[in-house]
Amino acid sequence: MSDLERISITLPKDLAKAFSASCEQKGYSNRSEAIRDLIRGALVKEEWQDPAAQVAASLTMIYDHHTRQLNEKLTELQHDHEDLIVSTLHVHLNHDNCLEVIVLRGEAQKVQDLSDKLRTFKGVKYAQVCFATDGSDLG
Amino acid sequence: MSDLERISITLPKDLAKAFSASCEQKGYSNRSEAIRDLIRGALVKEEWQDPAAQVAASLTMIYDHHTRQLNEKLTELQHDHEDLIVSTLHVHLNHDNCLEVIVLRGEAQKVQDLSDKLRTFKGVKYAQVCFATDGSDLG
Amino acid sequence: MSDLERISITLPKDLAKAFSASCEQKGYSNRSEAIRDLIRGALVKEEWQDPAAQVAASLTMIYDHHTRQLNEKLTELQHDHEDLIVSTLHVHLNHDNCLEVIVLRGEAQKVQDLSDKLRTFKGVKYAQVCFATDGSDLG
Amino acid sequence: MSDLERISITLPKDLAKAFSASCEQKGYSNRSEAIRDLIRGALVKEEWQDPAAQVAASLTMIYDHHTRQLNEKLTELQHDHEDLIVSTLHVHLNHDNCLEVIVLRGEAQKVQDLSDKLRTFKGVKYAQVCFATDGSDLG
Repeated sequence: MSDLERISITLPKDLAKAFSASCEQKGYSNRSEAIRDLIRGALVKEEWQDPAAQVAASLTMIYDHHTRQLNEKLTELQHDHEDLIVSTLHVHLNHDNCLEVIVLRGEAQKVQDLSDKLRTFKGVKYAQVCFATDGSDLG
Repeated sequence: MSDLERISITLPKDLAKAFSASCEQKGYSNRSEAIRDLIRGALVKEEWQDPAAQVAASLTMIYDHHTRQLNEKLTELQHDHEDLIVSTLHVHLNHDNCLEVIVLRGEAQKVQDLSDKLRTFKGVKYAQVCFATDGSDLG
Repeated sequence: MSDLERISITLPKDLAKAFSASCEQKGYSNRSEAIRDLIRGALVKEEWQDPAAQVAASLTMIYDHHTRQLNEKLTELQHDHEDLIVSTLHVHLNHDNCLEVIVLRGEAQKVQDLSDKLRTFKGVKYAQVCFATDGSDLG
Repeated sequence: MSDLERISITLPKDLAKAFSASCEQKGYSNRSEAIRDLIRGALVKEEWQDPAAQVAASLTMIYDHHTRQLNEKLTELQHDHEDLIVSTLHVHLNHDNCLEVIVLRGEAQKVQDLSDKLRTFKGVKYAQVCFATDGSDLG
């Protein structure tokens, strides 16, 4: 962790009280940690609004592995984007369905485009991007 | 505004720097105000996760006023929920479409149910709840 | 309402059954209406991803009317953006807090910027945009 | 894939046209596949609103592996929830930061609680759940 900076903020007493109750209920050991999480969450959201930002992300999809040629098409698409794709985790959900998580790094727009493309494949029932970050700004 | 409480938090220097840049870009006069907004946003979200919470909200919908009997049905539904509905604002968007915003107060679950119900009406093209709050905890 | 087009789609039987149950539970009179709503919802979301798109929207904010000069600042800002602002609805929530809904039309990016700007004002506790549409494409 | 059911729906011509353009732009080979995706997306969202629903999910988190005892605490927490956790994928983002994706199955509420808990750990900079499904209803 990088060096720390101490800052002082003012909160209306009612707000401070409600926030303390919320932190305690969630299990935060102190409000400082909770505020850091809020700030990081806001920065990650902003990062993703810039289509050219360098981001990290996970893409979760559900697909039916019986669908004809789907495996081949998925493999081919992933190899066409090997600059974006870091690693893949595959889980057998049930007789028909697989869950696959793909970790990606690259431009925000390219990550979104790949997710949109995968969703259109016959047999892919669900595809959702989780916005993360490469963490370089998060201290 | 209620009395103020001063609290001190620590941020990693990288995070503090990125956050300051973000605050400045958005036009915040200081980081304290930006942190208060993050805290309030988080508390409003939590409030809405409790279906029994007393909330305030706005419901925005688009509908085609030519649809047969839609006006009567909307009016009737609104009167059936007059305990929830505070006020309504109506805008003529174009030849066919109206935008209507309904301000609501009451249980979170009832607000969501009313929105879901309105969306099913023939002629209603869009209905979306904006989660707000009655502000009593926001200091 | 414009002329109708009939299209035929195929659904896996399990999906058709789950969807019918969901439609019934929500109160849709038929699946056609529910599918139209899903399509409209998706199109509105896409519309908003284009910063230059002409959109309609509502902005809901909570503020403390006691805050010094806030009323003046809000009025001034709204007049600076009178090309964007269609109409405003004001509700007195409680002793301290007001809820105000502003209906806006214009470029998606300008609507978002105005919301971001309002949120930074001292005394404004909450500001959220609800994405709607001018309805011209929604049939 | 299960047996298919053919259903017929009506769309206003303007809506049908806008939807066709959107499908083409995204790369769908036909509107039927796009509508199936919209239906599945809506059903997954509803599934998650029931805290007791059996779901599948991925949890993406970023953490600083230098944080004292964080590895031990993460490992311990994961073993306390081994009924929920299916598999984990770990990626080294940079000198300080790791990205970890955990695939989970179980009650929606328990999945959300675990994510909230992880986020409070000192050193965990980001934690986000991606709602998926075990796919049993998605045909």
